Amino acid sequence: MINVGVLGATGAVGQRFVELLADHPWFKLTTLAASDRSAGKPYGKIVKWRLDTPFPENIGKIKVVPTSPSAMKNVDLVFSALPADIATATETEFADAGIAVCSNASSHRMEPTIPLVVPEVNPEHLGLIDVQKDTGRDGFIVTNPNCSTIMMVTALAPLRKFKFTDIRVATMQAISGAGFEGVAAMAIYDNVIPYIGKEEEKMETEALKIMGTLKGKKVVNAPFKVSASCHRVPVIDGHTMAVWADIKEPLAKIRKAYMDYKPPIKGLPTQPAESVHFFDEEPDRPQPRLDRMRGRGMTVSVGRLREGVRFVAMGHNTIRGAAGASVLNAELIVKKKYL
Amino acid sequence: MINVGVLGATGAVGQRFVELLADHPWFKLTTLAASDRSAGKPYGKIVKWRLDTPFPENIGKIKVVPTSPSAMKNVDLVFSALPADIATATETEFADAGIAVCSNASSHRMEPTIPLVVPEVNPEHLGLIDVQKDTGRDGFIVTNPNCSTIMMVTALAPLRKFKFTDIRVATMQAISGAGFEGVAAMAIYDNVIPYIGKEEEKMETEALKIMGTLKGKKVVNAPFKVSASCHRVPVIDGHTMAVWADIKEPLAKIRKAYMDYKPPIKGLPTQPAESVHFFDEEPDRPQPRLDRMRGRGMTVSVGRLREGVRFVAMGHNTIRGAAGASVLNAELIVKKKYL
Amino acid sequence: MINVGVLGATGAVGQRFVELLADHPWFKLTTLAASDRSAGKPYGKIVKWRLDTPFPENIGKIKVVPTSPSAMKNVDLVFSALPADIATATETEFADAGIAVCSNASSHRMEPTIPLVVPEVNPEHLGLIDVQKDTGRDGFIVTNPNCSTIMMVTALAPLRKFKFTDIRVATMQAISGAGFEGVAAMAIYDNVIPYIGKEEEKMETEALKIMGTLKGKKVVNAPFKVSASCHRVPVIDGHTMAVWADIKEPLAKIRKAYMDYKPPIKGLPTQPAESVHFFDEEPDRPQPRLDRMRGRGMTVSVGRLREGVRFVAMGHNTIRGAAGASVLNAELIVKKKYL
Amino acid sequence: MINVGVLGATGAVGQRFVELLADHPWFKLTTLAASDRSAGKPYGKIVKWRLDTPFPENIGKIKVVPTSPSAMKNVDLVFSALPADIATATETEFADAGIAVCSNASSHRMEPTIPLVVPEVNPEHLGLIDVQKDTGRDGFIVTNPNCSTIMMVTALAPLRKFKFTDIRVATMQAISGAGFEGVAAMAIYDNVIPYIGKEEEKMETEALKIMGTLKGKKVVNAPFKVSASCHRVPVIDGHTMAVWADIKEPLAKIRKAYMDYKPPIKGLPTQPAESVHFFDEEPDRPQPRLDRMRGRGMTVSVGRLREGVRFVAMGHNTIRGAAGASVLNAELIVKKKYL
Repeated sequence: MINVGVLGATGAVGQRFVELLADHPWFKLTTLAASDRSAGKPYGKIVKWRLDTPFPENIGKIKVVPTSPSAMKNVDLVFSALPADIATATETEFADAGIAVCSNASSHRMEPTIPLVVPEVNPEHLGLIDVQKDTGRDGFIVTNPNCSTIMMVTALAPLRKFKFTDIRVATMQAISGAGFEGVAAMAIYDNVIPYIGKEEEKMETEALKIMGTLKGKKVVNAPFKVSASCHRVPVIDGHTMAVWADIKEPLAKIRKAYMDYKPPIKGLPTQPAESVHFFDEEPDRPQPRLDRMRGRGMTVSVGRLREGVRFVAMGHNTIRGAAGASVLNAELIVKKKYL
Repeated sequence: MINVGVLGATGAVGQRFVELLADHPWFKLTTLAASDRSAGKPYGKIVKWRLDTPFPENIGKIKVVPTSPSAMKNVDLVFSALPADIATATETEFADAGIAVCSNASSHRMEPTIPLVVPEVNPEHLGLIDVQKDTGRDGFIVTNPNCSTIMMVTALAPLRKFKFTDIRVATMQAISGAGFEGVAAMAIYDNVIPYIGKEEEKMETEALKIMGTLKGKKVVNAPFKVSASCHRVPVIDGHTMAVWADIKEPLAKIRKAYMDYKPPIKGLPTQPAESVHFFDEEPDRPQPRLDRMRGRGMTVSVGRLREGVRFVAMGHNTIRGAAGASVLNAELIVKKKYL
Repeated sequence: MINVGVLGATGAVGQRFVELLADHPWFKLTTLAASDRSAGKPYGKIVKWRLDTPFPENIGKIKVVPTSPSAMKNVDLVFSALPADIATATETEFADAGIAVCSNASSHRMEPTIPLVVPEVNPEHLGLIDVQKDTGRDGFIVTNPNCSTIMMVTALAPLRKFKFTDIRVATMQAISGAGFEGVAAMAIYDNVIPYIGKEEEKMETEALKIMGTLKGKKVVNAPFKVSASCHRVPVIDGHTMAVWADIKEPLAKIRKAYMDYKPPIKGLPTQPAESVHFFDEEPDRPQPRLDRMRGRGMTVSVGRLREGVRFVAMGHNTIRGAAGASVLNAELIVKKKYL
Repeated sequence: MINVGVLGATGAVGQRFVELLADHPWFKLTTLAASDRSAGKPYGKIVKWRLDTPFPENIGKIKVVPTSPSAMKNVDLVFSALPADIATATETEFADAGIAVCSNASSHRMEPTIPLVVPEVNPEHLGLIDVQKDTGRDGFIVTNPNCSTIMMVTALAPLRKFKFTDIRVATMQAISGAGFEGVAAMAIYDNVIPYIGKEEEKMETEALKIMGTLKGKKVVNAPFKVSASCHRVPVIDGHTMAVWADIKEPLAKIRKAYMDYKPPIKGLPTQPAESVHFFDEEPDRPQPRLDRMRGRGMTVSVGRLREGVRFVAMGHNTIRGAAGASVLNAELIVKKKYL
């Protein structure tokens, strides 16, 4: 068992980390960091638990520590649910202190030496860890993409053997993506908000790195363009998206690619039975309320495959799209013996 | 004043017709048709009024008649809110009996001799009325498009001077589009349904006819393709859509086209001050709850213009997208002296 | 293992029965009945599964049978999710054919010889089974109350030692209580419907029977009154209710009754660890979204205890309030050796 | 025309004040106060308009001033939408400076010399203005009750001739009652929150003052008790409540009291045609979405009258329950020549 900690343990993504790690077979959650004023108090007293799963009472007794490497000496790996503005410096500090950081924050995603990984899509990018270590750093940072990007690239994974030109994607994103307090009820109820700050930029840049090729010590971006239009809709969890991929192949071949898809990884505890569930017959799926918990929230569902090539993809944004993505990365790190 | 009637007067679109016609300056609503078992009863007794505007008490006293030309001899024009399966034969019957029909049903939209009109986009298509009359028919049928199509073609109207290639559109449609009983709360609450029967086909075919050119007695379809992905979201009224139009012009020219846009019609009572409202500065508009009632529900709002060319369009689906569209067509018919 | 079947297996409550029985330790789900036109087809082909839990594939292969005792000869007990109008005759037919019926339908609840049971409240009322058997019937019918009534009487269970006078209760009920198609989205979204047909009458009569006393072969109703006001709110699952019980005791004694409460039954597989969860410190609980799945949907949560005596109760209406209630009754029947 | 100003003009209630005063026949809205950092800027530049009615462009040009009497010398009356913590001192300052204050804040409601008025219920309580003036103050403060209290006391107005004992009330309150940012979407969507800070206390104390009797220079509280249970539900606007009033009269007399009700005031511009709309026949009304805009948001609707005496009341919380209530009070003040 590897001792692990969570940074930003009380927020929306932080709580998901705690939920996923409370009974993890490889990781022992020993340490929780939150704001300085919470330090010293039991996690169960300071967290306002907002998930509909039972609060893990054993974790509730852990005393919260400040967010600094010196307070977390017993851990080998931390999961970061920090906001981007804090994550930039703090995650670097942890990595420099010899701790592995699996981060959901956007701060370091586009740095050339930092892997931006979805295990089903680009596990080989973990090779950048060695590039980081070459700089004399003891620890390292591995990031997962923005939630919408994860759904898109995972849904596209079965199609990578085909030649793409442009991707267009219109998202219908859940309110939990903005954190517990991020969207006022008056703003989103009976409404669509056709704007999410920096989301389109993230989808348009991150996807090219993830689907790019590791050549030597560098990732060469994938040679296509992504054009995104991002919208918030009144859904609690689950990002849905309509995708157009300009693939010049018969639809039957595309369909077969989904039917035959096998991800390039296996044996990771958080990996679902199906990384991509393909709805071949149901005309009205995937739907967030019915499909977001498929594979305990880790399966990305794809349906409505049509000429275009068009399809609809959907996944759980705070599990597959955030905390679960980081945990899966950490499992891959362990399996690949980087830790 | 022209005496008019409404077919299908008790449903979602029928009630909107009644609301819009109760105090109309050109049309006198004298006759309401509904199912045979309602015939003879006052409208106010049989309708379950579900709009949040006050019920027009003067209309409530009108006795409902059966849906047949013989029962509606005093009217010169009927508005049809009939379901498509009934509309096919019934609307033909009314037109053959010498009555003008402004229909919101899909039945006759794609018939070569029947105009499919949005006054701001293709008013000249009313010329097909003469083609209908050449067949010896005394009345005629004029149709308006599907609700989503109306929003899209109206939002594209300022851009018609540019050369298009393909259009891609992802819709986020309101539940009222399916009628009062059309979507179960259990189906749509906290959910997105990525499928609306025949909606994509309608958008893909109707738009080409509307944006086509009337040459002699025929409409030649517009020379581009529409690829639609239609989704239902938990919004009461207002269809939002992300549109990509492949226009090879600088964004500044596109923006100027919206700023300078003047529709080709004027002086119609139901026409709003702005057919297209362009949000140039607000980053997060249009939004259905805040913008659907702009121009008393008749304005189509456009915002988030970006390279791509991408934008977001939104309009009220049961007013601009249904009953209001038919009433505006009827006003154009009167103004152009077809009646 | 006792072989059991489900009547009305495709509806909202029927699907919950299938979910709860798919892996039950005492009951083997062998038979599923649905409408005649479905008979002969595998359940997996005819059911439109709408729960967010995985569909039990092993049950999906079972071929559906017609709703008649002759088609279900291999079962000893059936769970009825039939609508009330069909349940009246059909459940009688099954009981006469020697089959035990655990019914969620309202048809037989108020019949003098039929037990209306919530195991935590009136397990001894199962004694009425003997009264039924005395009439020469081989099988028997046991019913559970209406969903709202179950939450109320379970929440009141810890207070039964005190003298009550009147109960007043205002409910805020979930849309799933009306079945998958029971409430149109246009009716309930952004709205409250202050009326649910026959619901107030059920709460006002059923509670008195359940909290009544079995004397000889009869139940003597409890000597207080219930005055209910029932409302539908935009919540998917979970009925919340504000309760006033006129108890002339200090609040501290009431609170202690909740803290010390132990239900009169134990050892039933579907029984939750806590039949009643009491929120003593949290000022804003119970809440349906956070608390409905407590005890796998079988716990009734109580909070906001105040002078009055006032409190708020909440429970999952299709699990604790319907299918789970029937299954718990069946388990009690087995434990008490009536089967 | 009386020059008036609004304090707290950019918030949820402040925007409603602007909407109601933009074209008022008696009041000229000349001055808008907001936070110091907004001072000097045009209202249209600093307000984020969130109502679905068109923004009043003429008001948009008014330059915002700081919240102090010296900056608002040209007005005779201000409407206060200030938060309670600021209102306490600020409103006193304005009254001392000779300005009439009509306040929606809770700060001064329960002070013995300050009228807490609903014009239909206790117009004579304005007599306390003279008591305030006796202290040498030039201006005065008049308050309106909490939104839920207003609906309750207005709904009870037709019943005041009967003897009451206790009132019990369970509310289902809209999210707009907490302000634009007051409730997070993650907190209320698919949920009920059975707690609103201080709301129950307000209903329980304010109602007794409003329904009390002005004797000399004092209000003697009404001699009954109110026991409230307050809940937030996912509704945008419109507070619904189930009320029990212990009135020992036949239901027919109660019903007649509603049918015959005439309010004690008339001729005020903001007063609706019906202060109380009574649904005598419709079994499922009032409903917030359909009925909140009755009387332009100023009518309180009552329905479902049953033995108990029980009924359901509903009104628009930010119009009748806040800004409209203050404006109606101001109109009464003018009519009664206190200004």
